Amino acid sequence: MSTTAPRRLHLNAFLMEAGHHEASWRLPDGNARADFDLKHWIELARLAESAKFDALFLADGPALNGTGEFRPPGQLEPLTLLTALSQATSRIGLIATVSSTYNDPYNLARRLASVDHVSGGRAGWNIVTSAGAAEAANFGLADRPGHAQRYARADEFLQVTKALWDSWESEAVVADKAAGRYADPARLHRFDHRGRHFTVAGPLNVERPPQGHPLLVQAGSSEDGKDFAARHAEAIFTAHRTYERAADFYRDIKARTAAAGRDPDNVIVLPGIVPYLGSTEAEARAIATELDELRVPEYGLRQVAAIFETDPSALELDRPLPDFILARPKLEGSQSRADLFVELAVREQLTVRQLISRIGGGRGHFELVGTPDQVADTITAWFEGGAADGFNIMAPALPSGLEAFIEHVLPILRGKGLFREEYEGATLREHYGLPVPANQFHSSTAAAIA
Amino acid sequence: MSTTAPRRLHLNAFLMEAGHHEASWRLPDGNARADFDLKHWIELARLAESAKFDALFLADGPALNGTGEFRPPGQLEPLTLLTALSQATSRIGLIATVSSTYNDPYNLARRLASVDHVSGGRAGWNIVTSAGAAEAANFGLADRPGHAQRYARADEFLQVTKALWDSWESEAVVADKAAGRYADPARLHRFDHRGRHFTVAGPLNVERPPQGHPLLVQAGSSEDGKDFAARHAEAIFTAHRTYERAADFYRDIKARTAAAGRDPDNVIVLPGIVPYLGSTEAEARAIATELDELRVPEYGLRQVAAIFETDPSALELDRPLPDFILARPKLEGSQSRADLFVELAVREQLTVRQLISRIGGGRGHFELVGTPDQVADTITAWFEGGAADGFNIMAPALPSGLEAFIEHVLPILRGKGLFREEYEGATLREHYGLPVPANQFHSSTAAAIA
Repeated sequence: MSTTAPRRLHLNAFLMEAGHHEASWRLPDGNARADFDLKHWIELARLAESAKFDALFLADGPALNGTGEFRPPGQLEPLTLLTALSQATSRIGLIATVSSTYNDPYNLARRLASVDHVSGGRAGWNIVTSAGAAEAANFGLADRPGHAQRYARADEFLQVTKALWDSWESEAVVADKAAGRYADPARLHRFDHRGRHFTVAGPLNVERPPQGHPLLVQAGSSEDGKDFAARHAEAIFTAHRTYERAADFYRDIKARTAAAGRDPDNVIVLPGIVPYLGSTEAEARAIATELDELRVPEYGLRQVAAIFETDPSALELDRPLPDFILARPKLEGSQSRADLFVELAVREQLTVRQLISRIGGGRGHFELVGTPDQVADTITAWFEGGAADGFNIMAPALPSGLEAFIEHVLPILRGKGLFREEYEGATLREHYGLPVPANQFHSSTAAAIA
Repeated sequence: MSTTAPRRLHLNAFLMEAGHHEASWRLPDGNARADFDLKHWIELARLAESAKFDALFLADGPALNGTGEFRPPGQLEPLTLLTALSQATSRIGLIATVSSTYNDPYNLARRLASVDHVSGGRAGWNIVTSAGAAEAANFGLADRPGHAQRYARADEFLQVTKALWDSWESEAVVADKAAGRYADPARLHRFDHRGRHFTVAGPLNVERPPQGHPLLVQAGSSEDGKDFAARHAEAIFTAHRTYERAADFYRDIKARTAAAGRDPDNVIVLPGIVPYLGSTEAEARAIATELDELRVPEYGLRQVAAIFETDPSALELDRPLPDFILARPKLEGSQSRADLFVELAVREQLTVRQLISRIGGGRGHFELVGTPDQVADTITAWFEGGAADGFNIMAPALPSGLEAFIEHVLPILRGKGLFREEYEGATLREHYGLPVPANQFHSSTAAAIA
């Protein structure tokens, strides 16, 4: 980022079915069949683009999400959905969550490069390592792989995908019709990677993506996750419920990035926030309460049990978390999410039912219930105080919650000069102010053309 | 198919870069950068849809195609490209080639289901088992897997993907907002497949596709390939250079399909044809000659050597195929393609250079050089004589060759009542007149709702 330009806030529209709140599909105007209804997604994508959001953001995991009994349990494969949405939009970035544990680098590098091409440089990859047992069972693993194992694979996965994206130099294609010479084979690189997890010859069979590499996003906040982010991530999606926690994370990740030899300004930190907006605090609270009362407690109980890798029968709705959970056992799955839940439950002395109610809408993310001014003030304070470079906006109900944010909060942020009035760039990297990565195989023009 | 409706011809537009002829990119109006130019593909897709083709068809393999020196060596990942094209079209089918050897069933079943959803039931999967050594080297295999091994994996792959597509019964989603009950878990099927190649729990996290299963296409013509097709394929793409060969294949595959317990009318046989069209035979010949003269012999030599799994130095351009190739060794790759080349070379006593010239445009497919009437007559003779249910149209140059076919050949076929004037159905299955498969997990409504 230039040091002379004012620092700008970055906002993603994190979209999920009828909204991020687990009961959003039950609202009178909730689209219960949102997941497989392309019109729903096109409407949301165009809405977010009209408001000049940096990107759309989609979560994912390759397994049914729960049993389906209480909440929509599936979703379109996100790179496929974003490819379709790329044709209904022209500027907004498109970030898909894809697992490095349950994909292989050649196919995934190729798909991401292809989406970057058809979208004109708008693709982003939110790299996750897939902690769940349900996911493992769809890929022949008897048990979920551990943290260290998943991140070791992810690290090598990134090494290979970057080499694949770099394997066509930008001058590789000559297209000399008269001479019948299409490409310079010396600029198409076979690199013969042989590692612990992958053996990949290369080159990729797709020309280098418009962004050089699709934008790399990361969402794990464990120690392994933060070290991985420091090495690879250009944007980080994270969950914090207090300014102090967010600021600690922000300082930590920027320091780790610098320690890894990278410019900390080239890592955009984006906490998730779940805004419940009303023209008064009471109106905002009523919106949150309406959703809270539509929640099925059994669903939340199962979700909390899954996070703590325990059986739902170990929990009682009207008692505190049991001691063995308060002792914070080491988990193989979402460690940072589990730690956050325990902290919240202890700090506020919550029963399991109360904990479920507090985390339902945002699955642990920061819920902001208030007026547009209150929400804009908090965003500003986090941004200016050094706790965030922007936010993943997780509307509890869609499209209404996103519409409210656009109509009432964005004008305040624009009034402060914090958020763009129009897109200035064409690619996701340009929206975030991030550079196109250098090509590791770049050879000098003189040497190659001679 | 209904026995009362007249039998209709099916036509796919098989698209490839600037055309199927290896030198098409060198034509004065050839788009040398076609592969990664979305506008090129949108133009072709809309052209084919305006002419009411059944489907677009895209080939693929997960490796660079050659060295890139003489011909564009890459392409967008085809499911990604077809997803983008689904948003620029509304009726035409979308068939992507994807390897069962270098994918895994959960992710691929999900992607295909997702494309079927976003396209409104237009997805088709051309199942290939990827014979090449270059592909193997991108997925950690020291050597290419053999025929039998690839087809055994493909067979189990299909078993799993069909179970995944069936894993949501059509009545699974209740979406009862008042009761807070989203789906009936008894209608979301975990099937716990444990096989030789795959262990997959299920269910899929995508609702059953609009077509039930995306349409299954197959393109291998070896013995293993034909047996696989008889069990699974709903359309077959095949290469024959004579009516007799095509008719033999047609009878054989229909008999194998019946023997596998399936209705032979539910397998659509589509040979590839490469039409060089002119208002006179001389004009058609001139178009073919222009392309032939743009060919780089070195490229063809390498291609022929690769098919016969030998070194290019074993071949001489101005001599016949060497004896060890005429002896027709058993190959691990494209056996049927190699056999076809040997037959052609022997029948017409061709040198390697002449063989390359004969196969360049269609890579072994049937080249038709002539007037629109001649091409339409041949199509009609094959269709009515029992050698084809339709064709994969492989224009040597794009868009010009496809435009010529649409403008001059289709009106003749329509005049004979063989080809549709308008789409009658909405899905690819409806275009082909094929049924939606029954759901293997379907339980009676009475039992499930009680």
